[in-house]
Amino acid sequence: MKHLDPLGPNQAEQLGATLATFRGRDPLVHCLTNIVVANFTANVLLAAGASPAMVDNAAEAEAFAAVAGGVLVNLGTPYADTAQAMAGAIRGAQGAGVPWVLDPVGMGVLPWRSALARAWLSQYRPAIVRGNASEIMALTGGQGSQGGRGVDSTVTSETALEAAVELARSHQTVVAVSGAVDLLTDGTRLLQLGNGHACLTRITGAGCALGALMAGFAAGASDMLIAAGTATALLTVAADNAAQHTTRPGSFPAALLDALDDVTPEKLSASVVIARKSA
Amino acid sequence: MKHLDPLGPNQAEQLGATLATFRGRDPLVHCLTNIVVANFTANVLLAAGASPAMVDNAAEAEAFAAVAGGVLVNLGTPYADTAQAMAGAIRGAQGAGVPWVLDPVGMGVLPWRSALARAWLSQYRPAIVRGNASEIMALTGGQGSQGGRGVDSTVTSETALEAAVELARSHQTVVAVSGAVDLLTDGTRLLQLGNGHACLTRITGAGCALGALMAGFAAGASDMLIAAGTATALLTVAADNAAQHTTRPGSFPAALLDALDDVTPEKLSASVVIARKSA
Amino acid sequence: MKHLDPLGPNQAEQLGATLATFRGRDPLVHCLTNIVVANFTANVLLAAGASPAMVDNAAEAEAFAAVAGGVLVNLGTPYADTAQAMAGAIRGAQGAGVPWVLDPVGMGVLPWRSALARAWLSQYRPAIVRGNASEIMALTGGQGSQGGRGVDSTVTSETALEAAVELARSHQTVVAVSGAVDLLTDGTRLLQLGNGHACLTRITGAGCALGALMAGFAAGASDMLIAAGTATALLTVAADNAAQHTTRPGSFPAALLDALDDVTPEKLSASVVIARKSA
Repeated sequence: MKHLDPLGPNQAEQLGATLATFRGRDPLVHCLTNIVVANFTANVLLAAGASPAMVDNAAEAEAFAAVAGGVLVNLGTPYADTAQAMAGAIRGAQGAGVPWVLDPVGMGVLPWRSALARAWLSQYRPAIVRGNASEIMALTGGQGSQGGRGVDSTVTSETALEAAVELARSHQTVVAVSGAVDLLTDGTRLLQLGNGHACLTRITGAGCALGALMAGFAAGASDMLIAAGTATALLTVAADNAAQHTTRPGSFPAALLDALDDVTPEKLSASVVIARKSA
Repeated sequence: MKHLDPLGPNQAEQLGATLATFRGRDPLVHCLTNIVVANFTANVLLAAGASPAMVDNAAEAEAFAAVAGGVLVNLGTPYADTAQAMAGAIRGAQGAGVPWVLDPVGMGVLPWRSALARAWLSQYRPAIVRGNASEIMALTGGQGSQGGRGVDSTVTSETALEAAVELARSHQTVVAVSGAVDLLTDGTRLLQLGNGHACLTRITGAGCALGALMAGFAAGASDMLIAAGTATALLTVAADNAAQHTTRPGSFPAALLDALDDVTPEKLSASVVIARKSA
Repeated sequence: MKHLDPLGPNQAEQLGATLATFRGRDPLVHCLTNIVVANFTANVLLAAGASPAMVDNAAEAEAFAAVAGGVLVNLGTPYADTAQAMAGAIRGAQGAGVPWVLDPVGMGVLPWRSALARAWLSQYRPAIVRGNASEIMALTGGQGSQGGRGVDSTVTSETALEAAVELARSHQTVVAVSGAVDLLTDGTRLLQLGNGHACLTRITGAGCALGALMAGFAAGASDMLIAAGTATALLTVAADNAAQHTTRPGSFPAALLDALDDVTPEKLSASVVIARKSA
């Protein structure tokens, strides 16, 4: 782990600048996601400044992915036909050089989708893999890989650091471990973000929406670690701001969307908490 | 275009009276729609005064459509099995004289669903076709038919007027083009509505919910242009009212539903903006 | 009916204690539900203090049900593949002794799902069956079984009391009939709950979310009548409290979730309205 270069507080301006670029681009984000969060995900993308398009049938997903800005493949509620669409979208994205994000919901706990995620990872290369600690550890097959309870992680993000680095290096991808502290690594560099609020765990879909945001920030980006980091910073800074208005689970989603709309590049740079400490 | 009869401000009372009839009827609206907006659509129908029923499996859709007040077929996220259900619902509706609304989401951009929409239009007759300008232009195969970006239109509703009239005449249907100005035509008459707020484009599902409202207003209606126009007026007047309370994307959906519940026939007549100018 | 033992006001403390146990357990609720209410259901479970997991594919549902705390099978929008998943989940739950709840949405009106529900009831034993009066009457094949209009009941819950008792006795289950008054019976005892607000009928998904809550309260419970009753009391007391803040259909869902989070065991005991009168 000594080879990891911790990105420091001086990165705050870069994240703000990345948000400005994102807003100017209004990226088209092709989402193949689950029935629970499809609506919230679309509204998160719209509030953040992107254009969602949920095309998750096998007849259209491959070609559409090739013209999208970024693609999200989320394994929340896969079915035989949507799993085929996901495979198509991955092929289409990769063939066209469009970055795609893998969110392996339930990885390690649910066998069919776990096999799908492993197969896709063995054959294709996502720009970003986002999950909670249990899911990331399950992807490397390491200890604690069965630590998830349902779709929730039972361990902290720090526990998954080694697995995240291993996964990032072996697959030449960026791995984002969501948790109280968000850890992101490309295998060489480490970004630790400290924003966010417990309310994000009291509503469904915050993690899934974050994966979609990452697909949006990946669109046209050259540095996928910064892209994933800016998505994370945007959502968690917005969560901090939303929690100033309400910490109740019913009111929080609307407050979060309002806050996403309200975070400017300047506010992002000023509010993001980047941990200094080396891993 | 000189043969179009522009409906004028004196139509405001008729739209209000149509809303009163709708509220008295509490129509049963059979929706075959997409996973992104199913919840919002149901809540829009309930807030407006209708009863939603989402029956989108192939085993039940045909028979259920025959006993519904109106049917919505929305191509937002079609799958092999729900597309079969949609075909069944169209057969069931048409056979029983139940009006159905076609909302060809992504028409012209996504080939499989575009072929479905074309096939249904060639064989059956929807009471109303609702879409944005790009989608309506794609239905007639005219210029700019590839103008959509994902599921969003890149051209104004006025651009699609000729296509809308052609489609309305050739298929003996009402065509509603949603946009900053909403254009509705039955091929002979033209209704231009000027209400609505940019917030409707910052949330997902406003257009899709409008299609569902049209199916509700079509139930038992004799004049489908007035039915589609009242649905449009109701949603856009409610949007104007909601925007008095909030213009933030997170708070807007709830405000819009509250406003839908609040719009009375009298308020609708008083607030609807009907453009006078001829096309 | 004279053999029914009406549970009285002295049960209020038991319902409160059951809520305290539920909160301590944070039960994992495996939901196979419909595309309209999946998001709202997950948020209701989270706000109430449970952990939702929507696993509704045929490859994973059976095994996952066996490790869940409780399972919900809701027939709102079944498809060929999710119906298979539901059958698997029922097998998995029953084989492992995990309680499962059947919510036969549209029973009696929609033939395919009605046949599914009947088949499952003939072969397996749900811990709780929840429905509106029309749906429960349709399950026993009695008079008024075609009384539903779409997915809404057209008769009061009291009308279905006889059918509920018959169903509870013949299938050794608890039957919960939702309505202005909620009736719950295990065939021997009767629990009548009088909380709730008309707003619950102006939004989509309240009944479906109640079924999910029942699956959560059934987890680890010894008395399924008290489990179903506590779920009902929690949702309807929360609705009463939410209606103090807003009775508008757009604002009500968030207020209801906030209120679910706010109801303590003590508040539940103090606010629940248990009818004394014998049936």
